Amino acid sequence: MTYCVGLKIDRGLVFMSDTRTNAGMDSISTFKKMHVWEQPGERVIVLMSAGNLATTQAVVSLLDERNKAVGDRHEKLLETPSMYQTVRLVGDTVKEVIAHASPDGEKADSYFNASFILGGQIKGSPPRLFMIYPEGNFIESTDDTPFFQIGETKYGKPIIIRAYDRAMSLAETVKLLLVSFDSTLKSNLSVGLPLDLLFLEQDAFKVGLNRRIGQDDPYYRTISDGWSSALKIAFSNLPDFPG
Amino acid sequence: MTYCVGLKIDRGLVFMSDTRTNAGMDSISTFKKMHVWEQPGERVIVLMSAGNLATTQAVVSLLDERNKAVGDRHEKLLETPSMYQTVRLVGDTVKEVIAHASPDGEKADSYFNASFILGGQIKGSPPRLFMIYPEGNFIESTDDTPFFQIGETKYGKPIIIRAYDRAMSLAETVKLLLVSFDSTLKSNLSVGLPLDLLFLEQDAFKVGLNRRIGQDDPYYRTISDGWSSALKIAFSNLPDFPG
Repeated sequence: MTYCVGLKIDRGLVFMSDTRTNAGMDSISTFKKMHVWEQPGERVIVLMSAGNLATTQAVVSLLDERNKAVGDRHEKLLETPSMYQTVRLVGDTVKEVIAHASPDGEKADSYFNASFILGGQIKGSPPRLFMIYPEGNFIESTDDTPFFQIGETKYGKPIIIRAYDRAMSLAETVKLLLVSFDSTLKSNLSVGLPLDLLFLEQDAFKVGLNRRIGQDDPYYRTISDGWSSALKIAFSNLPDFPG
Repeated sequence: MTYCVGLKIDRGLVFMSDTRTNAGMDSISTFKKMHVWEQPGERVIVLMSAGNLATTQAVVSLLDERNKAVGDRHEKLLETPSMYQTVRLVGDTVKEVIAHASPDGEKADSYFNASFILGGQIKGSPPRLFMIYPEGNFIESTDDTPFFQIGETKYGKPIIIRAYDRAMSLAETVKLLLVSFDSTLKSNLSVGLPLDLLFLEQDAFKVGLNRRIGQDDPYYRTISDGWSSALKIAFSNLPDFPG
């Protein structure tokens, strides 16, 4: 499987993804699921993917290729006039790739399916965050739902729902994401380290923090060990059932 | 969906189940998913179910009917010589019901599927806890895996993994189960209050605690509100990402 979260805070957009792909328990490997297109001072676009690896790689390759090709009639990721046009472009590419791979054409339950989180900012507009479905359509985050998860979303969701606050600092947001990822890593073997972490600060128009977090990362170790103890203490502080 | 947990502690077996069944978002109702057969001083058997309601009701009805019928050649739930024979009897009944309902015979992915947690104690043997698959086969809990979950298992699993301890008191175990159920209730609308709680004390050979916990239960309210605050405090006590 996969676990990716894109989260909107007042200060910008934060992205985290794992790197494990698997075709069965006995065939696992490491692939980066976070892709960045940057034109410093003008725009940064981040795309995270879950699902069929051939599909997600094809989507990224097509976007990349068209972006570089001179004279290509396709719209280019670094030239779209708005984030809305950007997500439409990516959505159409997703639809095209899945339709091409599926013998019966594009279908919601195809084996070749994949879903995506797209976020970024283009000069002149605020940062925006989207989730793209295999059908190529998409939804945008709002104040009510300021984050998207794809892949193995369940284990790590309760803590995000409870601790998220849009006024959080980047340092608190990374802590929250690591707790959410740690719960998922402990419960589903198809989600694996290392993790990729990326921060787009509002109106910076360049990648801020971009870090890979592995097994030996001292902060990850602190959170992983600390959260288990913190949970146990929190739990023991609640009153026992009076019977 | 459904959420049921059966958990083994040194002091006995603890069971908790929700009561929501649904056929789509717009068709929900309340059904008890916990069934008890008791012969005080000699044995208590508890069965919890998840899956197709027609199947689970049929299994319980068949077990009940055969138990009461005079001269029936079928083995009876209150006469099996051991918990192992009991779980075989229930497993065979599950298999029979699903095979009867499915046009193509019993299959692992049938629409009529259901899974079960069975626990209890028969005089002369220790308490035992089993999980029964739709195929009618089953597994037993061990020291390594002292609990079983069926239905919507993911949201409530991390806290059980982290806080379970076989030496826990009943009061602590109920607290643990309520925290696990509360996380699930907050995340999946197809799991709903009220909850059924039952305790079989080791060597008591009768139902100990047997309680229904609803929205207004003061202890449930304490745990539900308290756990949110406790989590937030635990989270804020962890060190922030150093950047």
